[in-house]
Amino acid sequence: MLTFIGLGLYDEYDISVKGLETIKNADKVYLEFYTSHLFGTTIENMEKLYGKKVHILKREDVEQYPDWIDEALDKDIVFLTGGDTMVATTHVDLRIRAIDKGIKTSVVHGASIASAVCGLSGLQNYRFGKSTTIPFSYTTSRGKKIISEAPYDTIKSNFEQGLHTLVYLDIDMEKGYMTINKGLEILQEIDKNRGNNFIEDKVSIGIARAGSDNPSIKADYIRSLIGFDFGEPLHIIVIPGPLHFIEAEALVKLADGPEQILEQT
Amino acid sequence: MLTFIGLGLYDEYDISVKGLETIKNADKVYLEFYTSHLFGTTIENMEKLYGKKVHILKREDVEQYPDWIDEALDKDIVFLTGGDTMVATTHVDLRIRAIDKGIKTSVVHGASIASAVCGLSGLQNYRFGKSTTIPFSYTTSRGKKIISEAPYDTIKSNFEQGLHTLVYLDIDMEKGYMTINKGLEILQEIDKNRGNNFIEDKVSIGIARAGSDNPSIKADYIRSLIGFDFGEPLHIIVIPGPLHFIEAEALVKLADGPEQILEQT
Repeated sequence: MLTFIGLGLYDEYDISVKGLETIKNADKVYLEFYTSHLFGTTIENMEKLYGKKVHILKREDVEQYPDWIDEALDKDIVFLTGGDTMVATTHVDLRIRAIDKGIKTSVVHGASIASAVCGLSGLQNYRFGKSTTIPFSYTTSRGKKIISEAPYDTIKSNFEQGLHTLVYLDIDMEKGYMTINKGLEILQEIDKNRGNNFIEDKVSIGIARAGSDNPSIKADYIRSLIGFDFGEPLHIIVIPGPLHFIEAEALVKLADGPEQILEQT
Repeated sequence: MLTFIGLGLYDEYDISVKGLETIKNADKVYLEFYTSHLFGTTIENMEKLYGKKVHILKREDVEQYPDWIDEALDKDIVFLTGGDTMVATTHVDLRIRAIDKGIKTSVVHGASIASAVCGLSGLQNYRFGKSTTIPFSYTTSRGKKIISEAPYDTIKSNFEQGLHTLVYLDIDMEKGYMTINKGLEILQEIDKNRGNNFIEDKVSIGIARAGSDNPSIKADYIRSLIGFDFGEPLHIIVIPGPLHFIEAEALVKLADGPEQILEQT
């Protein structure tokens, strides 16, 4: 049996009781931390809680040569990931490979940032549209700067449909974890390049360290929020559509938002 | 301190280790089960796990007269809900009331069906649009049958944008928990009333008892899926937009979908 377990949001205690029991009963524990990462813990602390060694998988072990799944033919193997499990395509692909080999699979869910942002900000779940990711810009060999405009278009399209956008921020091996500030700067740059004035006056919410005891949640107009210090990763942005009154009130009370937004609903 | 804790998807063991510890250290435990419900457990089993009495709140205790939150001024009170916490507007409202009274609040997240459907079906998270809920139809005093067409419009709009729709099903005090079959029937009826042919040939995924050891997950064309027996609640529907190849493959492998969908990607 190969069991996919979501570790939840922040530290080793965010796993479900069911997930922890499954690990304790497993023959072997694998973990991948490259699609997502728990910032509030270490492998040592996880091993201490589980009473078991944790084997860390590299990207190639998951995506190219996942030979280790064969052990699940006759042993109980668990595969741990941050957040909820099987949200990344690569996990789905792994599960299909396992099934093709005749391996039984199951899933133990964990908390995901996708629903956590609602609880932290007070924004209503059913008013979120398609989510998006802002990648780092890069420079071609000919010196041209490439900025993906897809996230900007998603945000704009959602806004025009009255919907909120959850904006994931790039994780890059070399450039590290994109901050809220950097993400907003990129959106601002696209706005300028297009000669638009869509971004500046919008309200945005930055959330850092969701799931921890001291998450940082701050709502403000983007022109102001861009200078706010959110501290340590992981960061995420929400760009809301037009706000309902109770949402505006929640942003003022839960996210220290500017009181003017109450008048704009 | 008033701590909002999400219980996760199915039974008492879906709570996070952090959430369980918080309950064990709390002075008093409140629970509301009317916006969501854990089908895999009972209050007795929860109390056994927590080692504490669980006080059940009615809708009016949460929405109209939440006097009990005053206890959180000088005690550690926890407020439990199914799924992730604070996704229902009524929880956000409660948190704002608490803050207005000077009560400290915090949140412990739980797994939510919104991300679990990705893991169970293999559909990609970032391809979901706005979600929707199908309410039961009702008959007016003049004998006119009223069917809300909003969910149909959301599904159609998402599909036309290439997006999947997560479709929640009504929970009604008298009519009970809407089944996948009933939800699909309602969509079919709207389709007929409008003289459209949008629904019949669409692929749909029904998911029952997410988070349990034996969830039922079945993908099929709606005309066939409408007769499938999913068993006990809770049910939920996903109507996917045009499928990517890996999604179609996942639906065949993970959700016993018809192989023809592989040719339609």
